Amino acid sequence: MQHQYIDRTIDYDGSQLKALYSYVNHRIHGDSIVSFSGLCDVTLEHMVDAEDFVESAKIKSDKMLHFIVEIFSHNLMTAVTLQRLLVSHAHQILAEKGHRFERDGDDLYLNKKKLSVSIASCSAVSAMIHLGINIENAGTPVPTCALSDLGIVPKEFALELMQRFCSEYKSIVGATQKVRPLDY
Amino acid sequence: MQHQYIDRTIDYDGSQLKALYSYVNHRIHGDSIVSFSGLCDVTLEHMVDAEDFVESAKIKSDKMLHFIVEIFSHNLMTAVTLQRLLVSHAHQILAEKGHRFERDGDDLYLNKKKLSVSIASCSAVSAMIHLGINIENAGTPVPTCALSDLGIVPKEFALELMQRFCSEYKSIVGATQKVRPLDY
Amino acid sequence: MQHQYIDRTIDYDGSQLKALYSYVNHRIHGDSIVSFSGLCDVTLEHMVDAEDFVESAKIKSDKMLHFIVEIFSHNLMTAVTLQRLLVSHAHQILAEKGHRFERDGDDLYLNKKKLSVSIASCSAVSAMIHLGINIENAGTPVPTCALSDLGIVPKEFALELMQRFCSEYKSIVGATQKVRPLDY
Amino acid sequence: MQHQYIDRTIDYDGSQLKALYSYVNHRIHGDSIVSFSGLCDVTLEHMVDAEDFVESAKIKSDKMLHFIVEIFSHNLMTAVTLQRLLVSHAHQILAEKGHRFERDGDDLYLNKKKLSVSIASCSAVSAMIHLGINIENAGTPVPTCALSDLGIVPKEFALELMQRFCSEYKSIVGATQKVRPLDY
Amino acid sequence: MQHQYIDRTIDYDGSQLKALYSYVNHRIHGDSIVSFSGLCDVTLEHMVDAEDFVESAKIKSDKMLHFIVEIFSHNLMTAVTLQRLLVSHAHQILAEKGHRFERDGDDLYLNKKKLSVSIASCSAVSAMIHLGINIENAGTPVPTCALSDLGIVPKEFALELMQRFCSEYKSIVGATQKVRPLDY
Amino acid sequence: MQHQYIDRTIDYDGSQLKALYSYVNHRIHGDSIVSFSGLCDVTLEHMVDAEDFVESAKIKSDKMLHFIVEIFSHNLMTAVTLQRLLVSHAHQILAEKGHRFERDGDDLYLNKKKLSVSIASCSAVSAMIHLGINIENAGTPVPTCALSDLGIVPKEFALELMQRFCSEYKSIVGATQKVRPLDY
Repeated sequence: MQHQYIDRTIDYDGSQLKALYSYVNHRIHGDSIVSFSGLCDVTLEHMVDAEDFVESAKIKSDKMLHFIVEIFSHNLMTAVTLQRLLVSHAHQILAEKGHRFERDGDDLYLNKKKLSVSIASCSAVSAMIHLGINIENAGTPVPTCALSDLGIVPKEFALELMQRFCSEYKSIVGATQKVRPLDY
Repeated sequence: MQHQYIDRTIDYDGSQLKALYSYVNHRIHGDSIVSFSGLCDVTLEHMVDAEDFVESAKIKSDKMLHFIVEIFSHNLMTAVTLQRLLVSHAHQILAEKGHRFERDGDDLYLNKKKLSVSIASCSAVSAMIHLGINIENAGTPVPTCALSDLGIVPKEFALELMQRFCSEYKSIVGATQKVRPLDY
Repeated sequence: MQHQYIDRTIDYDGSQLKALYSYVNHRIHGDSIVSFSGLCDVTLEHMVDAEDFVESAKIKSDKMLHFIVEIFSHNLMTAVTLQRLLVSHAHQILAEKGHRFERDGDDLYLNKKKLSVSIASCSAVSAMIHLGINIENAGTPVPTCALSDLGIVPKEFALELMQRFCSEYKSIVGATQKVRPLDY
Repeated sequence: MQHQYIDRTIDYDGSQLKALYSYVNHRIHGDSIVSFSGLCDVTLEHMVDAEDFVESAKIKSDKMLHFIVEIFSHNLMTAVTLQRLLVSHAHQILAEKGHRFERDGDDLYLNKKKLSVSIASCSAVSAMIHLGINIENAGTPVPTCALSDLGIVPKEFALELMQRFCSEYKSIVGATQKVRPLDY
Repeated sequence: MQHQYIDRTIDYDGSQLKALYSYVNHRIHGDSIVSFSGLCDVTLEHMVDAEDFVESAKIKSDKMLHFIVEIFSHNLMTAVTLQRLLVSHAHQILAEKGHRFERDGDDLYLNKKKLSVSIASCSAVSAMIHLGINIENAGTPVPTCALSDLGIVPKEFALELMQRFCSEYKSIVGATQKVRPLDY
Repeated sequence: MQHQYIDRTIDYDGSQLKALYSYVNHRIHGDSIVSFSGLCDVTLEHMVDAEDFVESAKIKSDKMLHFIVEIFSHNLMTAVTLQRLLVSHAHQILAEKGHRFERDGDDLYLNKKKLSVSIASCSAVSAMIHLGINIENAGTPVPTCALSDLGIVPKEFALELMQRFCSEYKSIVGATQKVRPLDY
C-alpha cells in the first residue's frame, strides 16, 4: 500500500469515491491511501451511505482533511473493518496528543461534538474508504470540533495517520501469509 | 455475534482453535466470542503461527485470560483485520484505566513487556482468532506484564472487551448492508 | 432476515430491483423480504433478465403480488438457488390449499397457465430476487392464472410465504454454522 | 452435473463424504450426484454435523438409499441451499405419489416419523451433500418411516430424484449466466 | 465454453465489453469466446483500461480481428490470467507459422511493432476479455504489424485460436475438479 | 512474488506441497516460487492429483528440477490458470533454445516423450503449484526426455523461468488494479 499527501486543495463532493480515483488523478497504482484538504459537500447523487440519504443528512464542511483508501481484491466486509481500524488509528494519534476522543464505530466525538465523517463501499473491482476530518468548524450541519481547535497541523496529522495505516495494512496482509490452516 | 464468559478454568494448548469450538464445547451457535482463564501452553502440533513454529517460539503462560472468536462466511483477511480491532479495543480499555500500552500489530506492550499473544487463521468453514492476555507473569518465556500487575480483574476485563467487540462486529456487519455500490 | 408486508399499492417497473430498495423505501435494514401489490410493467431499461430482453418478452400484469428479497454478502449462485426455494415454498402453500401447480425452475403453472414471473441478480453489494404472482389475469401477455381464480387472499398468502422463507433462510444460515469441514 | 445409480450395495459410514468421492470411487468427474443403497452407520470420527456430535445422536439405519452430491467452485451457503432444494424435490416426488410428508429444513416427516437424514459441508476444493432415505425401518434410533412402507422402489425413486435435481442444477447455473448486473 | 466466429463485420468501440454481450447479440449462452472483424475505435467513455485513459492512448485500427471472452462466476484475477494464456496461444500459433513474436504481458510485438491490444475487466455478474489483433496497419496510432503482413487469413486464425482457448479452458476447469485439498 | 533457487538437493515426495512450505523451510514470506533439484517419488498418501491416484500412476524420476509456487488469497481456478502460464513460459524458453515441445495442458512433450509433471491444489489458506522437470531420464515410469538430453543447465533454466513467472505474476496483479468495472 502506497500513501501520498496531495498539497493542492481538492474539494470533495463524493464523486471522488470511484474506482481508480488515485490512479486516474494522482498516478498511484495499486492499494493506496491518499490525503488532501478541501471543502466537503456530498451531493445526493454521490451519497453512498443510504443512511444519510434516507435521513437527508448533509455531509458538509468548509474545510476538511480527506483520506481516500482503495484496496483491490478485498471485499466490503474487510473494507469496513479496515475503516474502523483507520479511525481507531486517528483516535490513538489524538490520544497521544492528549485529546481523549470517543470512537463510536466510524465516528470520532469530543464531548458530543463530531470530528469526522466516513464511509466504505465497493464496486466490482475494488473497495474504497473515505474519511473526512474537520479542519475548521465552518459550514458543518451539526455541532463539530476540528483539528484547528486542537492545534493540530493537518498535513502532519495526515502523514502520521497514513504511515500508521500503511504499516498496519502491510502487517495484516503479512499475517494472512504465515498461518497454517486450522486443524480438523 | 454472541459472547460468553466461561467461569471454569480451561487450559489452552492450541487444540481449541478448531472449527466449532464454542458450539461443541459451550453450545454457542454461530458467530461468537468466548472467554475463560487457564494455563497457556501451545504444542508444536497445534501451533498455527508458522512464525512461532519457525523460530521455535514458546507460547506459554501459567495463567492467561483467553478469548476465542469464531466467524462464519468471512475470509482470513477479514479475520486478521478484526483481530487487530479486538486488540485495539483491549488497548483502549487499558488506556481508559490509565495504562498507556503500545499496540504493535496484534501485540500489546508496556515498556517493552509483552501482555498478550494472538493469532488468526481459518479452515474451510470458519475463521478464528485466539487472544491470550497474561493474568500473571509466571511461566512466560519473555519479559511480560500481566493484568495482576495492573490491578485488573480478568472477568470484568473480559466482559467489557467482549461487549465492545460484539457491538463493533454488529456495527460492521450493519455498515456493509447500508451502502450503495460505488458509482461507475 | 426480516419480512414486511406493505399495505399501500406500489407499482413495479423493475426499478425496484436495486440495491437497498427496502432500506431506502421502507427503512428495513439488512437481509429482508418485503411484499406489496400493484401493477407490473417492466421497462426494457430495467429488464434484468436478458432472456426476456432478447425475446422482447413483456413482463406485465395489471395486478400482481410482488416480493423483493435482498441478501448481503452472498453471491448470485446462492441467490438463484434461494429463488428456486422461494418459488418451491409458494408451490407447497398452493398444494396445501389443494391446487396442484407444476414448478418449472422459477415458474409456476396450472394447466399451462402461468402464475408468476421471477428473476434474481446482483450488484457489487447485494443479491436480489423479484417474484411476482398474478392477483388478477388482466393485462398479462400470455395465458395466465391468478390468485383471484383460486380464491386466495394476496396478503394472507404473502405473509405465509414470507414467514416460511424467512424461517428457511435462518435455518440455512444456521446450518452453515454447525458443520465440521470435510475430512481429508 | 452428472448422475449415476450404483447398483451394488455400499455401506455408508460417513467416510464417503470426502472430496472427490465419486471421482475416486466411480470415475465420475466434475459436479455429480450418485446414489446407492446400503447400511448407514456414521462413526463419531466422520460425523460432520456438530449438532449430532454434541447430542450424541446416532445416524443409523440398516438399509438406506444414499445420495452423494459434490459441487466444485461453490461455497457452503450455496450447498446448504441446494440441499434444501434436493430434499424439496424428494418431498414433491412423494407428494405426487400421494404421500403428504412435511419438510422441516433438510428433514422429511410423515406423522412425526422421520424418513431421512442429511448434511452438507465443504473442504477447500468442493462442497458436498449427503442425503439418506430409509429403505427399511430396521436399525433406526428414532421413530421412522421408510420407502418400503410406501411401496416405493428405491432405484426408481433415486433415478427420478437425481434427474430432477440435475435438471434444476443446470437451470440454476444457466440462470446465473443470463442476467444483467443490477442497476445503480 | 462455446466459441463462434461471426461472419459479418462488427465495429468495436468498447461498448461491446459489457455483460452478456454474446448472449444479447449472438444468442450464445454461458461461458463463451466469439470473434469477428471490424474497425476498432474505443471512445473515452468506454475505455476500461485506466492506463490508456490516463495516457490518452488511442485504441484504434481500421481493421481488427476481435475476440470477446465472457466467463461467469470467476473473478478478475482469473480473467487476467486467462487473458495472458489467450495471448500466449496466439503467440504460439504465430510461432508455429514461423513468426517469432515477443509476448510482453498481454501485448504481442514483432520487431517493436505492436500486433494487438487487449484488456480484461469485470462487472458484478461476469468477467470479460477483449483481444484485438490488427488485420491491417491502417489507422493505428503506433507502429504496428498486422495479419495481412504475415499472410494469415483472419477467420482461420480466429477459429484456431478459439479452439485452442476453449480446449484449454475446459481442461483448466476439469483440473480444478480432480485434486484433493492440500494436506495439513 | 519472490523467487529463490535452493542450491542443496531436496527430494520431493509430495509432502512439500503443503501450505507455507517456503516460509517454514526457506524463510520466504508471502507469494513465492522456489526451485531446487532432487529425486521425485510421490507417495500415494501425498498424491494430490486424484487422476494419478485412480490410475495408480507413478510420479517418479531420479533427478528432477522442482518448482513450488505458493500464492495467498487466490483460488484454485486462478492457481490452475497460473500453472498453465508457468508451463507455457517453460515451453517458450525451450522454444527460444531451439527445442519445439508440444504443450498439452500442464504437460510438455517432445516427440511423445514427457518432460514434466505438474499439479495445482489449495488448502484453506493458500493455493500451490508443483512443476517437476526431468533433469535425467533415469527412474521415470514412462518414455521421457530430460534437460540433460537438451544440454540445458538446470539452475540457469530455473532462474530464467522463475524470473519470467514472477514478472508475469506482478504484471497480472497490476492489471487487476488499473481497470474500471464494466459498464452496465
